[in-house]
Parts: sequence; C-alpha cells; structure tokens
Amino acid sequence: MTMAVDAMGGDYAPVAPVEAVCQAAKSFSDTQFVLIGDESQLMAAAKGDIPNNVTLRHTDVVIAADDEPVRAVRRKAESSLVMAAKMVADGEADVMVSAGNTGAIMAAGMLVIGRLPSVDRPALAPVLPTFDGRGVLLLDAGATMDASPENLVTYAYMATEYAKHVLDIENPRVGLLNVGTEDTKGNAIAKATFPLLTQSRLNFVGNVESREMMAGSVADVVVCDGFVGNVVLKLAEGIGLGLFSGIKETLTSSFMSRVAGSIIRGKFREFRNRYDWAEYGGAPFLGVAGGLIKAHGSSNPRAWYMALSQARKFVANDVLSKLSSAMEDRQE
Amino acid sequence: MTMAVDAMGGDYAPVAPVEAVCQAAKSFSDTQFVLIGDESQLMAAAKGDIPNNVTLRHTDVVIAADDEPVRAVRRKAESSLVMAAKMVADGEADVMVSAGNTGAIMAAGMLVIGRLPSVDRPALAPVLPTFDGRGVLLLDAGATMDASPENLVTYAYMATEYAKHVLDIENPRVGLLNVGTEDTKGNAIAKATFPLLTQSRLNFVGNVESREMMAGSVADVVVCDGFVGNVVLKLAEGIGLGLFSGIKETLTSSFMSRVAGSIIRGKFREFRNRYDWAEYGGAPFLGVAGGLIKAHGSSNPRAWYMALSQARKFVANDVLSKLSSAMEDRQE
Repeated sequence: MTMAVDAMGGDYAPVAPVEAVCQAAKSFSDTQFVLIGDESQLMAAAKGDIPNNVTLRHTDVVIAADDEPVRAVRRKAESSLVMAAKMVADGEADVMVSAGNTGAIMAAGMLVIGRLPSVDRPALAPVLPTFDGRGVLLLDAGATMDASPENLVTYAYMATEYAKHVLDIENPRVGLLNVGTEDTKGNAIAKATFPLLTQSRLNFVGNVESREMMAGSVADVVVCDGFVGNVVLKLAEGIGLGLFSGIKETLTSSFMSRVAGSIIRGKFREFRNRYDWAEYGGAPFLGVAGGLIKAHGSSNPRAWYMALSQARKFVANDVLSKLSSAMEDRQE
Repeated sequence: MTMAVDAMGGDYAPVAPVEAVCQAAKSFSDTQFVLIGDESQLMAAAKGDIPNNVTLRHTDVVIAADDEPVRAVRRKAESSLVMAAKMVADGEADVMVSAGNTGAIMAAGMLVIGRLPSVDRPALAPVLPTFDGRGVLLLDAGATMDASPENLVTYAYMATEYAKHVLDIENPRVGLLNVGTEDTKGNAIAKATFPLLTQSRLNFVGNVESREMMAGSVADVVVCDGFVGNVVLKLAEGIGLGLFSGIKETLTSSFMSRVAGSIIRGKFREFRNRYDWAEYGGAPFLGVAGGLIKAHGSSNPRAWYMALSQARKFVANDVLSKLSSAMEDRQE
C-alpha cells in the first residue's frame, strides 16, 4: 500500500508530519510513504534519517491557509496538496493525508480525485470528542452548505461503513442532529430526512440533540448539513480551547495555585485527553473516489500518527469498495 | 409597573422564583409582582413572609416540561404560564417571566400575547456566555426553524434595541453566524442575509464564526436561524456542563486532589462564574406585543433574580416601543 503525505500543511508542518511518517514507517513496514514538500526542509525535519519505505518528492509550491480553495487547487498544480491528490487520482497512491487548508483539501478531493459514481456530495467526517471518551462521527462538517435530505442519507450510509471498518463499531447507531428528540421536530431538511432514515437499512436511532451528542453514548454517527456541521465543529473546538485555557490560567495564577496544579496535573491531563482532538485522528472526506484523510490543522506528531494509522486502516480494510457496494445495494 | 411571574416552571420551582421575587420586591419597591401558582406551595416557599408589593394568584394547573407546547397552551388556559401571558395580553402586567417549557413559553407568546404588527417572526434571544465574560446575544435560539433572510434582519433590528436599552451597549455590533468570515461564505440563507445586513442601518460587522463568537469581543449580537441557534445553544450548554463536571470529578478523585481542590476552589469558581448562565439572566422573546422573559430552566434564585431585574429594565426603558419604532423606521 502506498500513502501520499502532504508534508507542508498544518500548524506544525513539516516537522510534525515528517516525524510521524518516520515513526509510522517503522510500525508499518508493509506500507510505502511518499512525503511531498520542500526536500531540504523534509531532510532537516527527519534529521537525515529516512526509513527505507519512505521516499521524498520535492516541491516548493504550497497552498496557504488563507488561499481561496478552488482557485488555489486549479492554479497550484505543483503544490504538495495537489501532487498528493494526483497520486491518488492516478492510482499511484491508495490514500492521501493532509493537515492543510480544509477548503483546498475538499476542492482537491472533488476536482482532482473526483466523486464516487454513486455519491452526489462527498462529506467531511471528523470524530467529535464526547465526554464518555468514545467520540462521535459527525458529518457533513462543511463540504456542502445546502444539502438535500437525500444527501444526508448518503452521508449516513457512508459513515456507517467507515465506522464499521475503521472505528471498529459493529452496528453503528446513526442519529439525525435535531432540536428535539420527537419524530416531528426540526427544520424542513431534518423533517424530510427523518422518514428516509427510518425506511433505510441503517441502524437509525432517531433525532439527537447537540447536548446529548456531546455527552456521548446516544449515537456513533450523527448526520447534518455542512453549514450546521461546520458551526458545531468550530463551536466545540472554541469552547474546549477557551475552557482549558481558562483552567490553565486558574492553575498558574498564584504560587499556591501552582502548588495545587502540580498535585492534580496528572489527573487533569487524563481528563483533558478524553477531550483531545489529537486522540481521534483525522477526518475522512467520504464519497471521493480514493482515500483522503484530513488531519487536524493543529496536529502534533501524535495526532499525525493517529491520522496515518487511520489512513492505513482505510486502505487495509478496503473501505472504499465497501462504501461503494453499500451505496449500490441501497439503490436496488 | 407590574410583573407576572409563572412560579411553577423550571427545575427549582416554586422555591427559586418565590425567593427571588421576595428579594426583588424589596429592591424594587416601585414594582408590583404577581406570583402565579399553587398558593399553599407559594406560601410555604415564602415562609409566610410575603412583601407588600407581591400578590399571589392561585392555580393548580401546570404545563409540564414534556407537554406538547401548542396543545398545552390551548388546553391549559388555567395554567400558571398561560395565566401570566394573559395578564400581559390584557394589559394587567407589563412583562412576564417564566422558567418553564421553552416551547410552551414561545407558544404562549405567539398565541396569547401575539406578535407586534411589524414583526413576522419573534425570536428567542439568550445571552451565550463568552470567554471574555461579556456574553453575546444570540438569536433566534429556536422559535422559527426555517427563517428567511428578512427574518434574520428583523432579529438584528430587535436585538440591537434590546442590547442598547437592557444590556447597556451603546452601538451594538451585529454579526451573522457563518462558516467563514469572507463575504461570500455560507449556505443560501446566510448568503442572502449578508447584503441585507450590509445595506441596513445597523452596526453590521460581517460574518462571525462560532469559534470566535465563543472567545467573545467580535460581536454583541449574532443572528442565525432558529435551527442553528438551538443547536448552538444546547451544544454550548452540553460542553460547559460536561467539562465542568469532568473537572469537578478530577478535583475530588483522591485525597490529594481534594487538598489541591480546596486550595484553588475560589479562583476556579471565579473562572466558572464567567461561564455561568445564571449570571446572564433570561432570554427575551423579542417581537411579541409585550414583555416576555424566559429564565433558564435550571435557574437558581440568583439566576431568577437576574431575570427579574432584566424584565424590570425591559419595561422601565420602554424597550417594546423602541423596538417597534426601530422596525417602523426601517420600513420607511
């Protein structure tokens, strides 16, 4: 299996992806890794120690975080991100991983790799941390702003296969994000989606409120349109960051607080890890005709490593064809 | 001024509202309070000590948290909630406060009090805690699931008046909840609302992402449709509750943690208070033809007191007619 890695995207690039790839290359000797980026920077990050199953592919073109996604993908064909997508499109790689500009990653997925024939709208599916430590696969997190009820059903089918074969959840429970648990709740999209999910072959558990979703253990997969999903994702991140930084401030605000802080540091870290995005790996862009995993923009080497492991599982368990078959079965 | 208080709604009813009303009655000697509910329970909660400017109005009918809102309001005309709304509709009270079933409060507002002539869709406008401690007025939090761009503009006008005259913000900054800050971002509603807000007389600061909204200091008012607003509200609540309970657990999990916990308790409480809904009072239901403040369902006496003060300010500063004039000016 071959994995293309955009080594120039994300807050800690190229050091974090290079370190993670070098570590992953040792764990997964059956996998070929292609690190794409500025060769001298990649060599420096690897401290000259490149494992046998890692190759470098040079480019000094990068898509920046604030580049307009579609234009950047069209104009920067030689960027590390587009080169990775081309490798997947050409069958040279089975999967790609990037922590770069989210919009550009989705645009590269759509324009360079292309959609699966049975999927109208691909969806970004991050795992949102929940308080029971299990996480919930939320989609779409921002690919399609005005999704149709049919799109949401497709998301549910795709996420079910992903949850089964990558997250190891036997019979994934699918919920519909809504403002109440009663069957008739919601806006026009939610109301029209509910009966479609009820009639589907999925393990549909009904409407799920955002409060309960965060507590966890109500659903393994939650579907919503990309506008709502993106708002939810960024809100959860923002609140997590704000609360943890407030707590840190509290624990370091005086000598006595620092003493207290040092006592509870370990337990506190344990709790914090349960709500840490890094532990949950990256978000697959489901519905494109190849493996595409978006690592979190602020991924450290550990988060990168999780995303790489996830990408490997995606290919090893042949999720792409399972997903395609599920979509075809559905239409029969 | 007369304030009608539904004393039977919310998690801590009737004790919390009765205690808060008795305290408020002493602070605000110019205000008449009418406590509506089971007289013997109200007397017991007040320990027989009812201030002069508080009267009791008996009913033993209550709308429960799980009653279907519209049906409950139609059938339970003698409930404490509907009686309070009738007092406002009949001009017997200037404002009402309830911590009961949110759907039923909105239904009572719409069906019993009615809309302002210039307002197509009223909106529920809670203050969401932000990490700078200022809070942000978010609307609509759940009254209208499929709002039009015009509705969102109306929300912005109403919230601007409320923020000016109740929250004492001189020139409230209005933001549009969106998935990016660029002008062209968003779903169909957001895209159509953006130019309308730009052309308005409001202090429109552009698109606001949910992550930045929580950090605070980007906008005083943020508008969105009721589906998104409700999801946001419940998510923020759920994450806040989950994180704080996790931290509490961490601080009490062993003898040494408890020692550490006792050292930092005060500072920690200070931080927590910044993210405490109770500090921000209740949510006005803006656009109905009378004062209607929804206190948070889990309001303790302090949160109730804040909601009562807010209700008083709403009337004292004549927000209802300022809001109506703003709506009329807008149409000229």
